[in-house]
Amino acid sequence: MGRQARAAAYQLAKLSAADKNAILRAMAASIRAHAPELLEANDLDLAAGAAKGLSAAMLDRLRLDATRIEAMAAGIDQVATLPDPVGQVMEAWERPNGMKIEQVRVPIGTIGIIYESRPNVTADAAVLCFKTGNATILRGGSEAIHSNRAIAAALGTAGAPEFAIQLIPFTDRESVAALAQMDQWLDLIIPRGGKGLIEAVVALARMPVIKHYDGICHLFVDQAADLAMAVALTVDAKTQKCGVCNALETLLVHRKAAPGFLPQVAAALRAKQVELRGCEETCAILTDSVPATEQDWSTEYLDLILSIKVVGSLDEAVTHINTYGSHHTDTIVTADEATAERFLREVDSACVFHNVSNRFADGGEFGFGAEIGISTDKLHARGPMGLRELTSYQYRVRGSGQTKA
Amino acid sequence: MGRQARAAAYQLAKLSAADKNAILRAMAASIRAHAPELLEANDLDLAAGAAKGLSAAMLDRLRLDATRIEAMAAGIDQVATLPDPVGQVMEAWERPNGMKIEQVRVPIGTIGIIYESRPNVTADAAVLCFKTGNATILRGGSEAIHSNRAIAAALGTAGAPEFAIQLIPFTDRESVAALAQMDQWLDLIIPRGGKGLIEAVVALARMPVIKHYDGICHLFVDQAADLAMAVALTVDAKTQKCGVCNALETLLVHRKAAPGFLPQVAAALRAKQVELRGCEETCAILTDSVPATEQDWSTEYLDLILSIKVVGSLDEAVTHINTYGSHHTDTIVTADEATAERFLREVDSACVFHNVSNRFADGGEFGFGAEIGISTDKLHARGPMGLRELTSYQYRVRGSGQTKA
Repeated sequence: MGRQARAAAYQLAKLSAADKNAILRAMAASIRAHAPELLEANDLDLAAGAAKGLSAAMLDRLRLDATRIEAMAAGIDQVATLPDPVGQVMEAWERPNGMKIEQVRVPIGTIGIIYESRPNVTADAAVLCFKTGNATILRGGSEAIHSNRAIAAALGTAGAPEFAIQLIPFTDRESVAALAQMDQWLDLIIPRGGKGLIEAVVALARMPVIKHYDGICHLFVDQAADLAMAVALTVDAKTQKCGVCNALETLLVHRKAAPGFLPQVAAALRAKQVELRGCEETCAILTDSVPATEQDWSTEYLDLILSIKVVGSLDEAVTHINTYGSHHTDTIVTADEATAERFLREVDSACVFHNVSNRFADGGEFGFGAEIGISTDKLHARGPMGLRELTSYQYRVRGSGQTKA
Repeated sequence: MGRQARAAAYQLAKLSAADKNAILRAMAASIRAHAPELLEANDLDLAAGAAKGLSAAMLDRLRLDATRIEAMAAGIDQVATLPDPVGQVMEAWERPNGMKIEQVRVPIGTIGIIYESRPNVTADAAVLCFKTGNATILRGGSEAIHSNRAIAAALGTAGAPEFAIQLIPFTDRESVAALAQMDQWLDLIIPRGGKGLIEAVVALARMPVIKHYDGICHLFVDQAADLAMAVALTVDAKTQKCGVCNALETLLVHRKAAPGFLPQVAAALRAKQVELRGCEETCAILTDSVPATEQDWSTEYLDLILSIKVVGSLDEAVTHINTYGSHHTDTIVTADEATAERFLREVDSACVFHNVSNRFADGGEFGFGAEIGISTDKLHARGPMGLRELTSYQYRVRGSGQTKA
C-alpha cells in the first residue's frame, strides 16, 4: 500500500487544479449516489456497536443519516471551490550570477491518517489531502469499519488516480505500528483522535507526526481591561461551546481588577450553569466558589467548569500560561496597547489574541475555507491548519549554464 | 537541562535583534580571547584520538588551530550582521468581523543538536540557534569533548541569558536517548552527522527531527541539450568538490544525445580522474567504462566515481530519479523550455535545477547568509536551511471585543 501510495502521489502531482476539482465534484456526486450503500454499511456498524455496549454518545458519533451524508458531500463540493495552494510561488529572487530561484508550494506526497470512530473523517481528511495533491492511507477505528469501507469505495469511483486514497481494511493495532514504521513510503502521519491515540503514534513513528493535543486555553483580564468586554469575552469563550479545544479553561484576573470584575463575571457565568473553581484570592471574593487544586491549572475540562486565578502582574499571567497551558490559544483583555503587545509577544502559544474570544481560533474563522485540525506542534504547521499546511515546497532554479568552479 | 533550556528560551524570546547581535559579537570576541584554552583542550582531544588510533582524516577534522579558531569567530561576527527573521510578519489580513490577523515568525523554542567529531559545530549550530532566539542543548561526540567544553565555556561568558547554550558534559549513548525522549522540554532535534547517527535519533525521538540524509544527485542531459553546456555542468557537479551531499552521483543521458555526448563528457571526466560506471548502452558507446550494477543507482559515492545511464525519455529520467534518488538536488540540461518545466514540476526533490550545476544547492549560494544544513525532509524545512527555517510562527489576532455567539 505504501508503494502504491507513492506511485499515486506522482500521478497526483501532475494534475492541474481544474483536474482535481472536477474529480472532487465527482466524489461528492458519488457519495450522494451511494447513500443507500453508506446507510446499509453504517447499520452494520451501529448494530455491532450496540451489541458491544457503546454509549449513546459514541453511537451518535458513529451514525450516518441522510443529513450527515449530504453534509459530507456538500463539504467535498466546497473544497472544490477553494484555491489550490500547489504551484504557488512563495518567493522568487535572482542571484548575482544570474540564477533565478523560486520557492514553490508542492504536495507533501503521501500522508497517513489514523483516526477513531467518526466515519466522516474518511471523506474529510482524504479530500483535503487529495485537493493538495497528496495520496492518503487511511486507518480508521474498528467501530466504523463498514462505514469507512463504503465511503472509501464511493470516493474511489470518481476518477482519481488509482491508489490515491487507500483505506487499510484491518483495524488491528499492528496496522498502526506498520504504518508508523514505513517512513520510506509515508511522508507524514496525522492522528485524529484522543491523546492516547496521538501518544501511541508519536512513540512509534519514524516520520513526522502533526499532533492535535489539548487546548488548555486562558483569558487574562488586565487591570486596564474594559470590564463589560471582559465579561462578554469570558462568557463567550467558556460557554459558546465548551467541549472543544479552543474553549476557555482558566481565567486569569489582575489583582487590581479582581474586586470589581469577579462578582460581575461570576454572575454571568453562573447564569450559564458554569462551575467556578478559584484560587485562594478568588474564593475570598467569590465566597461560594470551589477551591481550585494544583491539578486544575493543567486540566482541559471540556465542560462547564472554569478555573480562576488572581495574578499580580502581566509577568505572572504570562508565566502561568507558559507553564500550565498547552500553547494553543490565549487571550488578553486590556485597553492598554503596550501591555497587549507584550502579552502577544511573550505568550508561547499558536494563537495569541487581544480583545477577541478564544473561540475564534479556528481555520474557518481565520478564513482558511477548510481545516484539517489545529496543530499544537511548532514545526511545519502551528495552530489552525488549512490546505496550505498540507503542502511542502521545493526550490526551482533556472540558469544559463552557471558552474561553481 | 531541559527545564533550564525552556526557561532560557522565554528570556531569549524577549531580546531584540540588537541585543542578540551585541551578544553574538561578544561571543566572537570571547572565542578569540579564549584561543589558548581552546588549543589546550583540543590538544587533549588530539592526544586521546591518536592513542585510540583515529585515522589521519579523523584527527584532521578534530584539529583546531589559530586559523580555524579565527574562522569560527569570524563566522559568529558574520551571523551578527544577518537580518533577524524573528518578528517578521509573514502575512496579515482582516476578517469581515474586524479581527486583524497577523502570522508572525517566532523562535521555535528549544533545540537539541546531536553531532559527531568536528568541534566547530558547537559554535556554528549554537550561534545560529541563538540568533533566532532558540535555546540549545548540545551533545557532541566523545572525541571532541574537551574542545567542545572549552568552546561552550567561551560562548557562555558573552552575556547571553543563563542556560541559553548548554553542552551535555557526557558523551554516553544514554544521553542521546534521554534527549530524544524529553519532548516536553525540547521542540526539535537536529542530528548533524552520518546516516547511522540520524537513524538512531529518528528511531528514538518523540519530537520532530530535521534530517540531513544523503545526496544521491542526478543530472539529466536531454536530447535538446547544448552539449558543451552539458559537459561543463557535469564536470562541475561531479568534480568541483566530490565529497559533499550536493555533488553529482548519477548522470542520465537521453538516448538521442548519447552517441554525441558520452564520448565528449567521458574525455572531460577522465581528465579529472573520474571513474565511470555505465549501463549496458553506455558501455556500448564508452567501451572502456565499468558496467554499473543495480546497487550503483542508489549509491552516494562521495568520491570521483560517476554512474551513467541512458534513458529513452523525460518520463524515464524522472522515474529513475524519483525511484533511486534521495530527493536532494537534480538537474536537467536542455534548451527546450517545456521539457525543463515538466522536469522541474515532476521531480520530487528539494532542489530542481535547469541549466545550473547541482553544486549550487547550498544556503550560501541561495543567499541565505548562513546554513544549518540541507534538509532531506519535506515538513517544515526542505533543502538548504537558513535562519528562517530555525523559526516557527504564531498567529496574533487583535480585535475590539468580538464574540462568536
